[in-house]
Amino acid sequence: MSEIRKDPLSYTWVVLATERAKRPHAFRKRTEIKERRAKPRPCPLCEEAGLPIKEYAIWPGVIDKKTGTWKTRVLPNKYPALRPGLELAQTEMDAIFHLLSGVGGHEVIVETPRHEDVLSVMPLDQMEAMIRTYCQRYRYWRSSDPRIAYVLIFKNYGLAAGASLEHPHSQLVATPIIPPRIFEELTEAKKYYELNKECIYCKLIEVEKKAEISRVILENDTMFALCPFASRFPCEVSILPKRHSAAFEDITQREVSDLAKILSGVFKGVDAVLGDPPYNYMIHVAPLRTPGLLYYHWHIEIIPRLTMPAGFEWGTDIYINVVSPEEAARALREAE
Amino acid sequence: MSEIRKDPLSYTWVVLATERAKRPHAFRKRTEIKERRAKPRPCPLCEEAGLPIKEYAIWPGVIDKKTGTWKTRVLPNKYPALRPGLELAQTEMDAIFHLLSGVGGHEVIVETPRHEDVLSVMPLDQMEAMIRTYCQRYRYWRSSDPRIAYVLIFKNYGLAAGASLEHPHSQLVATPIIPPRIFEELTEAKKYYELNKECIYCKLIEVEKKAEISRVILENDTMFALCPFASRFPCEVSILPKRHSAAFEDITQREVSDLAKILSGVFKGVDAVLGDPPYNYMIHVAPLRTPGLLYYHWHIEIIPRLTMPAGFEWGTDIYINVVSPEEAARALREAE
Repeated sequence: MSEIRKDPLSYTWVVLATERAKRPHAFRKRTEIKERRAKPRPCPLCEEAGLPIKEYAIWPGVIDKKTGTWKTRVLPNKYPALRPGLELAQTEMDAIFHLLSGVGGHEVIVETPRHEDVLSVMPLDQMEAMIRTYCQRYRYWRSSDPRIAYVLIFKNYGLAAGASLEHPHSQLVATPIIPPRIFEELTEAKKYYELNKECIYCKLIEVEKKAEISRVILENDTMFALCPFASRFPCEVSILPKRHSAAFEDITQREVSDLAKILSGVFKGVDAVLGDPPYNYMIHVAPLRTPGLLYYHWHIEIIPRLTMPAGFEWGTDIYINVVSPEEAARALREAE
Repeated sequence: MSEIRKDPLSYTWVVLATERAKRPHAFRKRTEIKERRAKPRPCPLCEEAGLPIKEYAIWPGVIDKKTGTWKTRVLPNKYPALRPGLELAQTEMDAIFHLLSGVGGHEVIVETPRHEDVLSVMPLDQMEAMIRTYCQRYRYWRSSDPRIAYVLIFKNYGLAAGASLEHPHSQLVATPIIPPRIFEELTEAKKYYELNKECIYCKLIEVEKKAEISRVILENDTMFALCPFASRFPCEVSILPKRHSAAFEDITQREVSDLAKILSGVFKGVDAVLGDPPYNYMIHVAPLRTPGLLYYHWHIEIIPRLTMPAGFEWGTDIYINVVSPEEAARALREAE
């Protein structure tokens, strides 16, 4: 059973999931890891396609009406960092240590049955199925266990971005705490709202449209993609809905279709400029219990993993970026 | 000229150092990076040994009294992220963007003339020379430009930890802002002090000595090494002085000698358990203008880079760690 520990000296929380040490790249010498990774092996997400859906999947996923086969699937993570159904025990130790039991959830969202699909060439209807699957999981977690405070959906693509499986998949982690990174965003957004009575993300879209040197990559009627003003990484991308909305699953059918187009366009650009780089993306949403926040706005952060945070970044939380977002946006626009 | 940008949506700051894009691993396709890295090349820190010291070095370093040759050197970073001597301009743009000019410093501390030295086997007198060089740089920056708010000394070891040179070296970055990570620690430590009238780091040492399952790795009369309660990474290590002190350069000769022994012991343990892993270490100290803080305590964080922060960590600032600090401390103690 895992536990969640608060660092008494900073805002950091740690999920101590010692059962995941079964996963091979933990606590090993580097050479062993490299050898292991070089071995080919059958894909468990492809294999799984043969198993009876109801016995294995958390949610059967979006089904293709024509063929009756699945387009997306939601599976349990084989080595979950957090688990549902435990008692949420809180403990204080020696007056400075605070810990919680590892209540939560950890799921794998299979984005497509096709092993070799990548987002830059995935058909739009498949991308839409993936987005609708994300929505379904937010809805599920919002209406389930009230102790769950937050759900993060994210994707690791490529070995250097932490992916251990090749088959296109995203992950979902549900936590009983509001993550520090989200708390930070909520704090800054609330501060702005209190002073200006306006959502800072809505304001940001307005300002970015008029900027002298544009950081906009592309937009359509409902979605907006840009390289953020303080990009931490070369070709970092943010995607936001133009309409104010704090909960991802409030997305309309029109917005699902527009988001699929924007994601497709952005990843085509990223591939053209950086050549199929490893990346992470993370969907930031309001906490589960406050979906209607006026001051927060859901958004997707995409970070290509070409540079490596090292001692300076770890010691400061300041990032050194060698490519200006203005230059990155221009390159991504031109590639498109 | 670089600039320092504040993200309007979080606490993050970014140094935009586009001149560093000359460094080869920026904005390139991954395959090109791998090829470039494979090429052998002469070591600029070894080569430099032949140049006249006064023309090149920022500080000549510690000199070996017997031989008259250098034991450590301080050199300018060839691609500095921040530079001294600029005007510290602050700009507001469109009411939400805040930026500063890139005033600061970026230095390379050559730890030893011997290219093949590593900390686990470095002679203790060489380690002491390295520590005394760190002290000299803190003293220099504290007495120089009053616009500089903070100095971080850190080390990247191994390619996977962001090192681009093999020769043993640390780096120093001086910034006109207090880094968010340090601000966080100051905030938490101050909160504890206000309630308890005691430094939380002093309290931590007291508590860790009595813990039921020990996280202590080793200690001597003046220094203390442990695996922190909320370790983010397998075999993460913290080193603190037992005496309350917020400024690293207040270290006594006795403490320099004890710290060298502790560093040597910790790296011997890390090597034995993990097999010469890549790592970063960062020295956390009080801001330059407030060296005498009663609530803050300098410390060194060492993070072996065996696991990779991915989408979950980037999206939340919560870390999943598969090895408990209690188990890591036991392994490091036994290896020693």
